[in-house]
Amino acid sequence: MSAKQLGIGLVGYGFMGRTHSNAFRRVPNFFPGVYEPVLIAVAARNEARARDFAAQWGYQRAETDWRKLISAPDIDLIDIASPNDTHAEIAIAAAEAGKMVLCEKPLGRTAAEASTMVDAVEKAGVPNMVWYNYRRVPAVVLAKQLIDEGRLGRIFHYRAKFLQDWTISKDLPQGGEGLWRLDVSISGSGVTGDLLAHCIDTALWLNGPIDEVTAMTETFVKERKHSLTGQIQQVGIDDASAFLARFANGSLATFEATRYARGHKALYTLEINGESASLFWDLHDLHRLQMFDHRDEGRLRGWRSIHITDSDHPYMKHWWVPGLQIGYEHTFVHQFADFLEGLESGSVPGPSFRDGLATDRITDAVLASAKSKTWQSC
Amino acid sequence: MSAKQLGIGLVGYGFMGRTHSNAFRRVPNFFPGVYEPVLIAVAARNEARARDFAAQWGYQRAETDWRKLISAPDIDLIDIASPNDTHAEIAIAAAEAGKMVLCEKPLGRTAAEASTMVDAVEKAGVPNMVWYNYRRVPAVVLAKQLIDEGRLGRIFHYRAKFLQDWTISKDLPQGGEGLWRLDVSISGSGVTGDLLAHCIDTALWLNGPIDEVTAMTETFVKERKHSLTGQIQQVGIDDASAFLARFANGSLATFEATRYARGHKALYTLEINGESASLFWDLHDLHRLQMFDHRDEGRLRGWRSIHITDSDHPYMKHWWVPGLQIGYEHTFVHQFADFLEGLESGSVPGPSFRDGLATDRITDAVLASAKSKTWQSC
Amino acid sequence: MSAKQLGIGLVGYGFMGRTHSNAFRRVPNFFPGVYEPVLIAVAARNEARARDFAAQWGYQRAETDWRKLISAPDIDLIDIASPNDTHAEIAIAAAEAGKMVLCEKPLGRTAAEASTMVDAVEKAGVPNMVWYNYRRVPAVVLAKQLIDEGRLGRIFHYRAKFLQDWTISKDLPQGGEGLWRLDVSISGSGVTGDLLAHCIDTALWLNGPIDEVTAMTETFVKERKHSLTGQIQQVGIDDASAFLARFANGSLATFEATRYARGHKALYTLEINGESASLFWDLHDLHRLQMFDHRDEGRLRGWRSIHITDSDHPYMKHWWVPGLQIGYEHTFVHQFADFLEGLESGSVPGPSFRDGLATDRITDAVLASAKSKTWQSC
Amino acid sequence: MSAKQLGIGLVGYGFMGRTHSNAFRRVPNFFPGVYEPVLIAVAARNEARARDFAAQWGYQRAETDWRKLISAPDIDLIDIASPNDTHAEIAIAAAEAGKMVLCEKPLGRTAAEASTMVDAVEKAGVPNMVWYNYRRVPAVVLAKQLIDEGRLGRIFHYRAKFLQDWTISKDLPQGGEGLWRLDVSISGSGVTGDLLAHCIDTALWLNGPIDEVTAMTETFVKERKHSLTGQIQQVGIDDASAFLARFANGSLATFEATRYARGHKALYTLEINGESASLFWDLHDLHRLQMFDHRDEGRLRGWRSIHITDSDHPYMKHWWVPGLQIGYEHTFVHQFADFLEGLESGSVPGPSFRDGLATDRITDAVLASAKSKTWQSC
Repeated sequence: MSAKQLGIGLVGYGFMGRTHSNAFRRVPNFFPGVYEPVLIAVAARNEARARDFAAQWGYQRAETDWRKLISAPDIDLIDIASPNDTHAEIAIAAAEAGKMVLCEKPLGRTAAEASTMVDAVEKAGVPNMVWYNYRRVPAVVLAKQLIDEGRLGRIFHYRAKFLQDWTISKDLPQGGEGLWRLDVSISGSGVTGDLLAHCIDTALWLNGPIDEVTAMTETFVKERKHSLTGQIQQVGIDDASAFLARFANGSLATFEATRYARGHKALYTLEINGESASLFWDLHDLHRLQMFDHRDEGRLRGWRSIHITDSDHPYMKHWWVPGLQIGYEHTFVHQFADFLEGLESGSVPGPSFRDGLATDRITDAVLASAKSKTWQSC
Repeated sequence: MSAKQLGIGLVGYGFMGRTHSNAFRRVPNFFPGVYEPVLIAVAARNEARARDFAAQWGYQRAETDWRKLISAPDIDLIDIASPNDTHAEIAIAAAEAGKMVLCEKPLGRTAAEASTMVDAVEKAGVPNMVWYNYRRVPAVVLAKQLIDEGRLGRIFHYRAKFLQDWTISKDLPQGGEGLWRLDVSISGSGVTGDLLAHCIDTALWLNGPIDEVTAMTETFVKERKHSLTGQIQQVGIDDASAFLARFANGSLATFEATRYARGHKALYTLEINGESASLFWDLHDLHRLQMFDHRDEGRLRGWRSIHITDSDHPYMKHWWVPGLQIGYEHTFVHQFADFLEGLESGSVPGPSFRDGLATDRITDAVLASAKSKTWQSC
Repeated sequence: MSAKQLGIGLVGYGFMGRTHSNAFRRVPNFFPGVYEPVLIAVAARNEARARDFAAQWGYQRAETDWRKLISAPDIDLIDIASPNDTHAEIAIAAAEAGKMVLCEKPLGRTAAEASTMVDAVEKAGVPNMVWYNYRRVPAVVLAKQLIDEGRLGRIFHYRAKFLQDWTISKDLPQGGEGLWRLDVSISGSGVTGDLLAHCIDTALWLNGPIDEVTAMTETFVKERKHSLTGQIQQVGIDDASAFLARFANGSLATFEATRYARGHKALYTLEINGESASLFWDLHDLHRLQMFDHRDEGRLRGWRSIHITDSDHPYMKHWWVPGLQIGYEHTFVHQFADFLEGLESGSVPGPSFRDGLATDRITDAVLASAKSKTWQSC
Repeated sequence: MSAKQLGIGLVGYGFMGRTHSNAFRRVPNFFPGVYEPVLIAVAARNEARARDFAAQWGYQRAETDWRKLISAPDIDLIDIASPNDTHAEIAIAAAEAGKMVLCEKPLGRTAAEASTMVDAVEKAGVPNMVWYNYRRVPAVVLAKQLIDEGRLGRIFHYRAKFLQDWTISKDLPQGGEGLWRLDVSISGSGVTGDLLAHCIDTALWLNGPIDEVTAMTETFVKERKHSLTGQIQQVGIDDASAFLARFANGSLATFEATRYARGHKALYTLEINGESASLFWDLHDLHRLQMFDHRDEGRLRGWRSIHITDSDHPYMKHWWVPGLQIGYEHTFVHQFADFLEGLESGSVPGPSFRDGLATDRITDAVLASAKSKTWQSC
């Protein structure tokens, strides 16, 4: 069935290294096509752990220097799943070597950094994608279809939140393995780049460009111990970030992200209100889409909870039977399946690096607005 | 506006005496019509409490003998809110005196007892009603309308449960004020007559006659102290009761009631599955009706939660504005408003005493089946 | 039981006139006390309708000039349920005449207007209250108790929304009976004063003072026909309003109100996230409170849906039995019961006119911020 | 890491062939251990499709006769995912050849058939398991732990339902590929063996043995066209099946399964009510467990929705991070991981063939009761 082998080199073996690797391995089972991914190598600084990771996920070899992947002739695609501060250098090197590039989000730590990455892949003309995986949740894709079909009519409101609670404890250290998201020098920002970036990417995709924002951020815990050095450091990231926005289509929006919302683990919710219908989705029950359709008979109108598990729902004919839900990791499988299909058809779908840059521009504007306490045009 | 005064005599001042009295007082504010209820007298054995109750609810006088109400010329309607063992005697006396009669459910402790009551009111030709109030929940009325309009098509399944948890403690005494429901000599039965009777009344109304049942009952706590005498007694009531049924329309049903379902206070739920649509309702959120409509577009089908607060929902134009829910006691207001409107139009709606008898026949069959361990025809 | 009669004069017979009148009539049945409200007179310009209203609700007389109520010796309390532009004049006249004053919210159309009202009642020393009824939802009161007990610990976030969808149609006229809320000369503002004011009053009560805000408003439909004159007019109100806020306690907040959120009738929601626990409440299911308690055993933590119908829940021992919900209008009953109890005890609880002024100051800041596109201190 | 290779031979390539194959392939990535599954061969009658299936899932070869798998020396384990009428013959042959045997549920079409299978595996002493996968839902495992820890106290009630709606159309044919579940000669029964069997297996595991049952079944559509022959045939299966039961621990239960519950795709729900706590679980949101704990503070008691995605929840540390749900197929991965761990430890966990027989005994009793209209001891 699969005729063309596609050699993959992965940089990073953390949480995202796992989700990407799983996608590479699941696609042939559930979305078989012309391209067959071959897991060639994983690169990471810790040699023993890189080797274990390679064994567990079936990579043929492990490297401690990602440059070895760039120069390897059997590798066609570089997948970047390492911390944010490494994205640009690796992506640019990969593009210059003519490799396809997949990059974990956010693309850069700033729009300026992301811009150099866009330049590199566009100059090299290599297929590229950013892992904004929530665009591949079947319920979110169905929302996109409904919006594009004009089912919602004129849009009045957009609302998105991404609420977590895992950094409330003052005793949580920052920096080091699994904790680099709290170290601003590596991550670039706190929840703005980590969580709001997801909300913004989906919003731009569903509701079009944002014109202007006014924002506020806060760092609730001002000092933390570094996990490796043990030293008490200033906390540089934003713990919480919220903004008001106006979209180009005239709709108003509220956005919020935090890691201090007790009781919410990864509650990404979005809602869009149109003249004729409204939609709501929630990551904690990602297999459902809520819809209110004003065209329903008056006395029978209500919010409908659509269990997105039927064969006519996006991607779902590839999985099980109606009523049987999929989970989080499936979104990465969908994205990689779409990427391979794009290679086949000659048209790789978004989110491209250019799309990733668009989101970075908004997160930059959010941080600038919070700092200056002024509205920022986007 | 209101031209004809309707003198009311209430027997009993317990929980149901309050719900009925509230109905009498609310109707003129929210459902003004030709008849104006006038609260003449309440009768109960405890003189001081009867007098307090009369003062609080605006009854003109209090009596200690209900026969005084029967013989009072200024009383047109006798309302029975006293324990089950008193229903028949009072109702028959009232009918014989030519009074209208409203009776709290269940009508009799047995179908035989209820039958004498039906005979009395029908012989006397007096307006009569049983307080199966859940027929007047707006969501349930909407369900009835949808079924009658044929929206559900052929019915396959009916399910009803009434789950409570207030008698789990072994230390709860039986008998006496507020606890007569546990004393089988007064109540006639346990949850079968108290809770299942509600489920059955609604089911007969929504889904038609039941052909046969097989049942099981249980008394989890076998002995309790009597609240007045302090003596340890055998518990005669059923603590839990469940049955399978076949309706005349060919649908299958499960029914269950218990006071031992930890976590459920008064969870009356009903569901009906038809070829084209299904409905679900739940007393703990009584202002909502869930509907699944198979005629919706395939990929957008889902259970709809209809917030029953619009002016085109049953009874709701009399209350507030969309989005603002009503509560439990409103069902009694609706029932009494319908009764008065029936007097005006000359056609008092059900549930009549005859309807109450039909339910008693099913509860008799349930108890007989549980005892004999055989299917019982109804 | 009730010894002291309290003569009531009501101005206005619209939606709020009904909710207040119902409160006056229900209190003696459910919250009997020393004071007995006596419904003396209703005043409204339309004589026939005022007379009908008086008959339906049991007012002894109807007037067409509210000044007749102010001068009536049998009236102790003036209740203002007429449009916003009449609040100040009536309240000040009532206070000067030594009457107690209850006023529908918002107190004034602006803080300046409200300030004159506060001065009047405080100078006269008369009991006063604003009908911010959501402070009397049992679930919200329970939230207040939990916060005051320190159950939530340090507060990080507050979120409130009030979403409606009743003005989406361009064909809806503005001005006139039942539509004055769209006429800015009468209402003072759109959703900011109508809906956000509720959110703000509750927030100030639960979470303390607000330090600063940045806001955005929008008028989606720019022109509407006047319902009486038929003329096309500019729309002066805000159709939607959102703001970010910082509270004095260091928590961050998002607030939003709109009448363009398709699918939401009156969805007032509030959430508060503390270090140890979080709470969520929602007007569409007002009889429930959601709570997440971090002190629960780790693997068993989850959001708890508390069905606020037990006798140990605020106000609920006065109503029915566990599992049986109350509705919207009960909040007004509670507020008036608390007012009477305050008269008895000599300490009338809030929200006082001074509390109403505090809310008006925030709504003023919100509107100013939206206009100037700057942060506003409060 | 993985040292011992375990050769697998799969019979059947339908829906269950896919779920099992996915389990074989996911275990090394997520639950690495001593045993490494090697996908040797798939057997099915249609040669072309068997070959495609082998290619898609990575089986080394495809066979058209399952006996080839039995005799293959490189195959250690026979996995039966073919229709019910083939289970016994294959399982017995596999056991006699000394192979380990995994079998899709129900074990046999009748307890008599299942009994021969139990004899075979026990005589041969080979590891064996039945794919009652719902025992491996993390939420259900947590329920089991809580029950075993005594958190629920004395059990009063158990309730289970499995509701589907996919056979309502009269035009749906019976028999043939993907439709053999409607052909009683192949399936043995309808929903009783297909859906109730799941409910019963979980119930026996969670709540212990069942003493007696009374049941009712129905075939709503009496005739269907055969999908291969085109002939109109009598329908032999039960479309719906419900029963009442008494457990050995004194609790009462209701069970129901149907394929005629419009709006429910695969709604397996279970609830258990104990003296101290209750639990509820639902397949449509399989990543949640509802719990009501009576030991919570009175006024704060409520049903808690536990999002089963934390690392201290069963199996979840092997997957992602808190808040990110898993799906249906993960239950099979868990079961196969447990099987391999059982091989390592020398103690293969249930459900064994003997457990599968216990369930078949109950389904036999249910069908016998429905036929005879009598209670059946189990």
